[in-house]
Amino acid sequence: MQVLKSYLCGEWVSGEGAGQTLYDPSTEEALGTTSTEGLDFGAAREHAITKGGAALRAMTFAQRGEMLLALSRAIHSKRDELIEIGMKNAGNTRSDGKFDVDGASGTLAFYGEFGKSLGDATFFTDGDAINLGRSSRVSGQHVLVSRRGVAVHVNAFNFPAWGLAEKAACALLAGMPVISKPATATAMLTAKMMEALVASGALPDGALQAIVGPTGDLIDRLGPQDVLAFTGSGATGAMLRSKKNVIANAVRVNVEADSLNAAILGADVERGSETYQLFINDVARDITQKAGQKCTAIRRVFVPTAMVEAVNEDLVERLYGTVVGSPFAEGVTVGPLATAAQLRDVRVGLELLVKSGAKVLTGGSAAVQGKGAPEGKGFFVAPTVLFAEDPHAASAVHEHEVFGPSTTVLPYKTADECIALVARAGGGLVSTVYTDDRAVSAELALGIAAYHGRVCIANGRMGSGWLGPGTVLPSLLHGGPGRAGGGEELGGVRGMGLYLQRAALQGYGPLIEGAVANARKV
Amino acid sequence: MQVLKSYLCGEWVSGEGAGQTLYDPSTEEALGTTSTEGLDFGAAREHAITKGGAALRAMTFAQRGEMLLALSRAIHSKRDELIEIGMKNAGNTRSDGKFDVDGASGTLAFYGEFGKSLGDATFFTDGDAINLGRSSRVSGQHVLVSRRGVAVHVNAFNFPAWGLAEKAACALLAGMPVISKPATATAMLTAKMMEALVASGALPDGALQAIVGPTGDLIDRLGPQDVLAFTGSGATGAMLRSKKNVIANAVRVNVEADSLNAAILGADVERGSETYQLFINDVARDITQKAGQKCTAIRRVFVPTAMVEAVNEDLVERLYGTVVGSPFAEGVTVGPLATAAQLRDVRVGLELLVKSGAKVLTGGSAAVQGKGAPEGKGFFVAPTVLFAEDPHAASAVHEHEVFGPSTTVLPYKTADECIALVARAGGGLVSTVYTDDRAVSAELALGIAAYHGRVCIANGRMGSGWLGPGTVLPSLLHGGPGRAGGGEELGGVRGMGLYLQRAALQGYGPLIEGAVANARKV
Repeated sequence: MQVLKSYLCGEWVSGEGAGQTLYDPSTEEALGTTSTEGLDFGAAREHAITKGGAALRAMTFAQRGEMLLALSRAIHSKRDELIEIGMKNAGNTRSDGKFDVDGASGTLAFYGEFGKSLGDATFFTDGDAINLGRSSRVSGQHVLVSRRGVAVHVNAFNFPAWGLAEKAACALLAGMPVISKPATATAMLTAKMMEALVASGALPDGALQAIVGPTGDLIDRLGPQDVLAFTGSGATGAMLRSKKNVIANAVRVNVEADSLNAAILGADVERGSETYQLFINDVARDITQKAGQKCTAIRRVFVPTAMVEAVNEDLVERLYGTVVGSPFAEGVTVGPLATAAQLRDVRVGLELLVKSGAKVLTGGSAAVQGKGAPEGKGFFVAPTVLFAEDPHAASAVHEHEVFGPSTTVLPYKTADECIALVARAGGGLVSTVYTDDRAVSAELALGIAAYHGRVCIANGRMGSGWLGPGTVLPSLLHGGPGRAGGGEELGGVRGMGLYLQRAALQGYGPLIEGAVANARKV
Repeated sequence: MQVLKSYLCGEWVSGEGAGQTLYDPSTEEALGTTSTEGLDFGAAREHAITKGGAALRAMTFAQRGEMLLALSRAIHSKRDELIEIGMKNAGNTRSDGKFDVDGASGTLAFYGEFGKSLGDATFFTDGDAINLGRSSRVSGQHVLVSRRGVAVHVNAFNFPAWGLAEKAACALLAGMPVISKPATATAMLTAKMMEALVASGALPDGALQAIVGPTGDLIDRLGPQDVLAFTGSGATGAMLRSKKNVIANAVRVNVEADSLNAAILGADVERGSETYQLFINDVARDITQKAGQKCTAIRRVFVPTAMVEAVNEDLVERLYGTVVGSPFAEGVTVGPLATAAQLRDVRVGLELLVKSGAKVLTGGSAAVQGKGAPEGKGFFVAPTVLFAEDPHAASAVHEHEVFGPSTTVLPYKTADECIALVARAGGGLVSTVYTDDRAVSAELALGIAAYHGRVCIANGRMGSGWLGPGTVLPSLLHGGPGRAGGGEELGGVRGMGLYLQRAALQGYGPLIEGAVANARKV
């Protein structure tokens, strides 16, 4: 069995004791262990701040960009090996694995190129200089400078590669050192990727550390210049946010949590049209890809009442050919859930939806034998479509995210009713309006925008540039208000804001001009 | 005795029971009472969301701007009466009162004009459209839209006029309805101002409500689209931030709290120079204005070791002519603290600084008889300068804000040492570097920027456009990281961000273009 290591203070280290065991979720075979017990997280934080932060701030944006490009290449050069580990330890199909690993290298490459485009500056000006008197002798100029602490990243189990990369890209380019903690259950991929990143030689000492296992007292040590970014369950997000030192020090916290993302079929869309087909494709992909373990996956499908029968039929039909099983077995299109705990949660969740008034059209909470998996082993769930005839009564459908291969169809009558139903989730990451109609798209998309970090308007005329709502792009915002955590990641420079302190410079114009002469306009 | 009223659901109401008593802090005479017991805050929140929010979102930025200008005029037309109430109930000198009341009307006017400049749009686009495919058929466009909840504003006792206005200006222009709660002790001015705002007829039903007294269960009712903005002590800010529903719903919270603002005399500045005089003037003003009860007041004065003797001498000399007493007595330049509790806190705080190694050069914690006040009455403190010979040992000077007419001089040897000492406050609102030297200003100002929301570079060449660091301008950011609460207010459009949800629109280019055709670029 492999013993995983953390990378702290420039060394590969493991903790004391037996630690936690990591499994293959298809076979339940133990693959490795990891422990972080007794590791010195205070020293790791100091190392990040004194070494990593200082080194990163001394680099220009262009140099930080080159560093990110080197990290991207380091991941890409180990692509096959990383995908294979994800198939083994995270239950990814090969296609799921590519989604994760290529997402990691792609996001690093995006921010690498972005950094290069920012040139030789080390910080930003934000807006133009403002005359505060009658002349420019007294002026104001906002700037965005690197925070002087450490960015601690706590990632989710579903994207062991992309999770580390997308958060680290923004922080490192902004000039903040990172300590990243993957979810333990699927950390074999992250640990291997971290080896490649360190071996690339592109990282200054202290710029990036990784904790493979629990974070000990690290979170309790965070101070006023530190940042905490978390992706995972709302409950854990709330626990982190409630920590005494986090509140007392106003530690910047970004949470990306639960989301009952919606797909809305516009009233103008006819069965069989290209837009209709795209809609069915997107919903089906979000059920099956990563076995539905995407924070952006469509959980609620809003359909005009008259179209419900058609949609239910076509969705069930579409899922007919899916094969659930081990990613290593031939023909498998849906892998297992990542852990036994996730399997339990999904089964309980599906039963909650049923109790709330949703009817199972296909799939459900029953045990499933996975193709290529040992008899009775593996954390498999069948792709599941539910239908809630009364969308107002089915509270759980709007409030409980089933983090597996499942979605629920809900009828709606008017745009206003649909907007109100979408809003019942209390804030989400992304929802999509499928329509060819300008009025429908404007009313629905702007009507639900305040409840989301991303809103898609999709139809059959888009061609190949459309990857579905479930793919997070580095150029567009990822996050959402309320239940989704209230966070903002990615979106180009927007995602760097978490790691930058905005300050207004005010006073004698010529000296302010001098101080910002080498800054880059944001 | 006057019985103050709250303005909720379009009506002037008072609660049950005796409520709280408001005093004249110069005479300790009771002036009025207020109670909010039994008022229906759930109904007020609903009223704001359903009536006020809908009405504001239907208005263009220009129309919201006109509304703010009308509110500004309504305050200005009652200027003398409002200043008089502030002298009576808040202990403001006439000059302090102008600072508060003109700050209120000025900030509303600034945002009114800004709104007019934004024209007929109702929401913003943020950045340009991004091509996501090979053509513009698939594109991305970030927008900023009004959040669909209510903005609850909890203000501090020191600016009963400006506090309401500066927060409300940003929220109303962003299209969010406001429920504002002034600090009870000094709320007579706010209540009178609120009368003028309502009487102006400029406010749509539900756009602005005021709670004069405790907020009951209002904060516990806040949901995922709501915003909570608080100015006051770090302890209360932490309490609000820790609330279960605030955390569970990711209610947006903005806190503006304690701050140990610094003034740094550059090593290049000679005694008697214009820059030196400006420095002495600014420090002295921040001790005396509002009796030092400004969150932006200079609490720590960093001086090159060689200049300490001169600065101590000149500061003490400068304060020699100040007269402490009732704002209604002739010649008084420093009014009382606002409440008995503040007086207790300031005395305890001064003793803490002394215990920590600071020496009183003038003033101190002893009882003071105010000019024009009845014998032994009134919450007076003498303008106080302390000196801490060992700036590293004097922890309390960096950590405990004495919210009264007091500052502490600290010596420094090198720029690096000075930056490290400034940083020991754990984040602040504003600090100022006094220098004529380009290298000194760039090193110190950028060195401390990450710890602040505003950094000033001041010298004798600025002329009349300089109002000192203690004046918060609507065009520049107000807030700061860490101990200062981590908030961002004002700064033009930046302060509106708290009330706007950023969302990425993604998908079919022509439909996205259509949806944002009437938006205004931020």
